[in-house]
Amino acid sequence: MKPRILEIRQGVLEKNDALARQLRQRFLDARVFVVNIVSSPGSGKTTFLERTLRELIARGHRVAALVGDLETDNDSQRLRASGAPVRQIRTAGNCHLEAHMVETYLQDLDLSGVEFLFIENVGNLVCPSSYDLGESLRVVMLSVTEGEDKPRKYPPIFNSSDLAVITKIDLAEAVEFDRAAALASIEAVRPGLPVLEVSGKTGQGMEAWIDLLIERRRQFLGEAERLMQR
Amino acid sequence: MKPRILEIRQGVLEKNDALARQLRQRFLDARVFVVNIVSSPGSGKTTFLERTLRELIARGHRVAALVGDLETDNDSQRLRASGAPVRQIRTAGNCHLEAHMVETYLQDLDLSGVEFLFIENVGNLVCPSSYDLGESLRVVMLSVTEGEDKPRKYPPIFNSSDLAVITKIDLAEAVEFDRAAALASIEAVRPGLPVLEVSGKTGQGMEAWIDLLIERRRQFLGEAERLMQR
Repeated sequence: MKPRILEIRQGVLEKNDALARQLRQRFLDARVFVVNIVSSPGSGKTTFLERTLRELIARGHRVAALVGDLETDNDSQRLRASGAPVRQIRTAGNCHLEAHMVETYLQDLDLSGVEFLFIENVGNLVCPSSYDLGESLRVVMLSVTEGEDKPRKYPPIFNSSDLAVITKIDLAEAVEFDRAAALASIEAVRPGLPVLEVSGKTGQGMEAWIDLLIERRRQFLGEAERLMQR
Repeated sequence: MKPRILEIRQGVLEKNDALARQLRQRFLDARVFVVNIVSSPGSGKTTFLERTLRELIARGHRVAALVGDLETDNDSQRLRASGAPVRQIRTAGNCHLEAHMVETYLQDLDLSGVEFLFIENVGNLVCPSSYDLGESLRVVMLSVTEGEDKPRKYPPIFNSSDLAVITKIDLAEAVEFDRAAALASIEAVRPGLPVLEVSGKTGQGMEAWIDLLIERRRQFLGEAERLMQR
């Protein structure tokens, strides 16, 4: 990378970070727990998120979602069927979401009373790692069909995440998924990263995921209260 | 995207295009048919390429490969087992290969007598679409596990490719792959794009792919002769 480009890239990231900090404060003030979901294209983000929205709604929680894609609003249409308010962010060629896109599309989304906001990033295991969106939880997804060494080959996205979710676990046998190798690969790149194993299709592992979300939001609310009292 | 960044990006792409033209001339002079393989992470590029190298070698062809990854040389180790000369390009965080990386790593690879050079791009359905590497054939791969609407969601990479290969076709039933929907999605984005369906694991469809490569190289050699006679 040439120095001048590096410098400008640095500037872009600094601006993004500054805006992400503002967003994070805004989410904290509104008590909205924000989850940024990143993965390869086709690893099952939308099916997983669809089920997540439905199960949280079924448990009485208020949820909303923003969905990033280069083109089409296929994903937001699918997610809207859950009953949750959903906005599609078309990035028009941009390979990742940035904080300013989230800010823009939030103008059109009523967050009052919303407890969980999910942001489905553009399918890309590289670029989204550099862009903070003000989230409280960054979740990297990896499907059993993708190969166990993905974490070693794409370390930044695993390093910057708070949780790894292995998806399509219902296909593990059909694709001869080597679970131990996948866990070792995650552990090598990001020791101690919590890992969940789920199937958005059969629902396997979804309860543990929903429990984790509710528990993390509880901690987030506790933190918000402590900050208020200062 | 801010104007100043757009301008610099334009400059980067122009420089890349200029270098790609030089590489293309060099490949033409050396009669090396170059294939640039792009796809999501985990769609089976390496397994497919491994089998391709073996089958071409078995048919008496001379082959070589360059493999791009952010980190690790796992893929080049796998490919080297075929007996072909392989070089790993570690992009150190860069989400795509650029012509200057190919040029650099070619210095270390003896192309004399090589008939086919394969370049396995970084797993990414977005950014590689903008970077010409001087290839004669750009192949976009899509696995049956990824969802049939990927072409509609990532149009530039399908628009810029010469061939689509649907991989992991052995899993089609297990994942309830909707073949007609996938083909319609490709056709909507890039009408007339040839599509092959293969399994790098079982070998299904590999013969048609190898035949296509040999036929395309024959056309490429014919073109090289015509240009010489001018």
